[in-house]
Amino acid sequence: MLSRFSRGELKLGRIEAFSDGVFAIVATLLVLDLRVPSLVNHTSAAELGRALLNQLPKFLSWLISFVIVCKFWLNHHHVLGQARHANYALVWLNSIFLMFQSFVPFPTAIMGEYPENPLAISFFGCVMALNTVLFILLQSYVQKNLLKPEWKGAEDPHLLAKSFVGPASYLVGVACAWWNVYAAFAVYFLTPWFFITPPEPRPTRQPPNDNA
Amino acid sequence: MLSRFSRGELKLGRIEAFSDGVFAIVATLLVLDLRVPSLVNHTSAAELGRALLNQLPKFLSWLISFVIVCKFWLNHHHVLGQARHANYALVWLNSIFLMFQSFVPFPTAIMGEYPENPLAISFFGCVMALNTVLFILLQSYVQKNLLKPEWKGAEDPHLLAKSFVGPASYLVGVACAWWNVYAAFAVYFLTPWFFITPPEPRPTRQPPNDNA
Amino acid sequence: MLSRFSRGELKLGRIEAFSDGVFAIVATLLVLDLRVPSLVNHTSAAELGRALLNQLPKFLSWLISFVIVCKFWLNHHHVLGQARHANYALVWLNSIFLMFQSFVPFPTAIMGEYPENPLAISFFGCVMALNTVLFILLQSYVQKNLLKPEWKGAEDPHLLAKSFVGPASYLVGVACAWWNVYAAFAVYFLTPWFFITPPEPRPTRQPPNDNA
Amino acid sequence: MLSRFSRGELKLGRIEAFSDGVFAIVATLLVLDLRVPSLVNHTSAAELGRALLNQLPKFLSWLISFVIVCKFWLNHHHVLGQARHANYALVWLNSIFLMFQSFVPFPTAIMGEYPENPLAISFFGCVMALNTVLFILLQSYVQKNLLKPEWKGAEDPHLLAKSFVGPASYLVGVACAWWNVYAAFAVYFLTPWFFITPPEPRPTRQPPNDNA
Repeated sequence: MLSRFSRGELKLGRIEAFSDGVFAIVATLLVLDLRVPSLVNHTSAAELGRALLNQLPKFLSWLISFVIVCKFWLNHHHVLGQARHANYALVWLNSIFLMFQSFVPFPTAIMGEYPENPLAISFFGCVMALNTVLFILLQSYVQKNLLKPEWKGAEDPHLLAKSFVGPASYLVGVACAWWNVYAAFAVYFLTPWFFITPPEPRPTRQPPNDNA
Repeated sequence: MLSRFSRGELKLGRIEAFSDGVFAIVATLLVLDLRVPSLVNHTSAAELGRALLNQLPKFLSWLISFVIVCKFWLNHHHVLGQARHANYALVWLNSIFLMFQSFVPFPTAIMGEYPENPLAISFFGCVMALNTVLFILLQSYVQKNLLKPEWKGAEDPHLLAKSFVGPASYLVGVACAWWNVYAAFAVYFLTPWFFITPPEPRPTRQPPNDNA
Repeated sequence: MLSRFSRGELKLGRIEAFSDGVFAIVATLLVLDLRVPSLVNHTSAAELGRALLNQLPKFLSWLISFVIVCKFWLNHHHVLGQARHANYALVWLNSIFLMFQSFVPFPTAIMGEYPENPLAISFFGCVMALNTVLFILLQSYVQKNLLKPEWKGAEDPHLLAKSFVGPASYLVGVACAWWNVYAAFAVYFLTPWFFITPPEPRPTRQPPNDNA
Repeated sequence: MLSRFSRGELKLGRIEAFSDGVFAIVATLLVLDLRVPSLVNHTSAAELGRALLNQLPKFLSWLISFVIVCKFWLNHHHVLGQARHANYALVWLNSIFLMFQSFVPFPTAIMGEYPENPLAISFFGCVMALNTVLFILLQSYVQKNLLKPEWKGAEDPHLLAKSFVGPASYLVGVACAWWNVYAAFAVYFLTPWFFITPPEPRPTRQPPNDNA
């Protein structure tokens, strides 16, 4: 049964198209949480200004999630570029990753609505830690089973260990949320900057060109 | 009139792009059913926790539908990869299949909202059985009329009969719903695992490579 | 100023990708109008059944619009396949066409909500007639200015006149709506079947292959 | 740290696919602001007519935003066509630009809801000015660092200065809004026509073909 998953040679192009679609929709749906406020006096600039300022936590949640989704997109692009081809195991690891990627608007909306509720803030961090772990699973599978020959030995051997900095940092934010929600916001804001560019190949080897 | 449909040579690439777009949007829209709960006490973790637990049937509906949509995407990829080219009959069979694929968020939302209503649960199963039948029509059309030469004879001759296990299983769930809704949930959850990888070509022939 | 629009050589691939995205989203958003009904008794199959039957006009509007959008997608695919390349005039004619294509969910929702209101029904027909006229503009521009050499003379010379059957038929529906809304529904349902396949090239010439 | 961003050779194809997805979704989501009006008498054409006329500011906002998004798409296509390849700096400049592009439905909805509120109208102009500045940053980066050899010297040397006409014009609209909202609407409507086609290469050189 399990060996069926290592079969199949699928077009990476359609997997990328499906994934790009999901990433683009998730990134764009995030804005649907910003709601047009209800004003008593429709022409009052002061009332609209106060209503927009009240939505500040929603803007901040939107900003953090958008950056995180773009970071996942960039790293996803990097990992699929390292794969020779796709098999069913890759498709399903990718689908489960995309499932929780498409889930992101929900914890983002809850964090934006209840920015002082510790459970709301820690729920966001848990979902992001889970997303990062699912991405690491996808990455490890590609590197163990489907790596293009020119990438063999070119990756940092400590990459897997370094990857866990992401989930660990989100879980620090989860713990912070029960002590101070603002500290948790700061941790979530800073975490994506760690892996903002994919790891470079080791300089001792000729850098592979993933543009082909 | 009917013969017009067998004419036309369309770019499979644009049919795939349109289909991937629909699959990606359907998969991502499913999350819009998870609503931010209304809390009396905005900072109460206990109240938010209870509200999220109450949405458990919605999470479960979302999970089941996401896996089913991914399964359809994977099998759709497999079938279009077997076609030499596209004609108008393929385009319209594909459009009708996508129409009911794009319908999936509606029964999913109803099942998530009314998880103890037998009609809600059986409606979901009927829609999924219909989707599977529409997919089998698309698959049969490709295999009878548009199959690439290298795939001729490579498919399991009992494939068509085996494909009907899917709709039959969903209809078992539909019947179960009137007896016990939890049994129906279990049947819906288990059904997609049957066709989780497309059928392998028969081992007596050299396996075709659909990566070209 | 006007001559600037005939300049530019744009990648047809990105225009197709943007258009396919819009078509896929429009087709999928149509389902968002089907709302989960509010039930007094959550477990009553009879109440849910009546509530779903009350939504019959919405299901019908969704079905009609989905078929129309797929028909536009198919004809759009056909016309862009006849173009040598894209220039700015094509991009803007395409954008204006897509603008009113993306408008389709709005009259669909109004028709589904107020199926016995003559203005609601005739508004739908007017939007569809406008969409068809915008498509004819796009098609005429391609055939006059950007036609691939192998398509020259291959199209039916009466194509332009025949194309106006579409808007004329929608306008018949618009007029019917003020007399009998059910007749208008029937006209809207039948209209897309007229151009359900793009026109075939004339048999006296070797049929061009737009699959390249 | 900063030098990491100038590394990487990414597939322009996936960046275009992700961007096209975001553009298509933003353009299509704009229509979700047009709401089905609530009627007292469901079959009254007069009441529905008045309700649709009351939504005129929303139709106007939708129209202005759709044209602006299409204009950005066209110029984005032009700039990415000038790039030799993509690096991480390009990806992040593109992501930040897309972030505020995906934000567009929010100020559009506010302007459509409160068309006589000066803050609502000036908020829209500020967001559009910001979008234009972010686009100019992306464009400048490509032209300084990633320009294809055949485009070197082909662009108008005053292009950067001319590009700032866009943000300046939006800011004129922002100022107008506090004096007369209708004047601001007019300015917003006229601004995108300035850059409705990308700048032509200088006629003294052979025009490069970006169709490759």
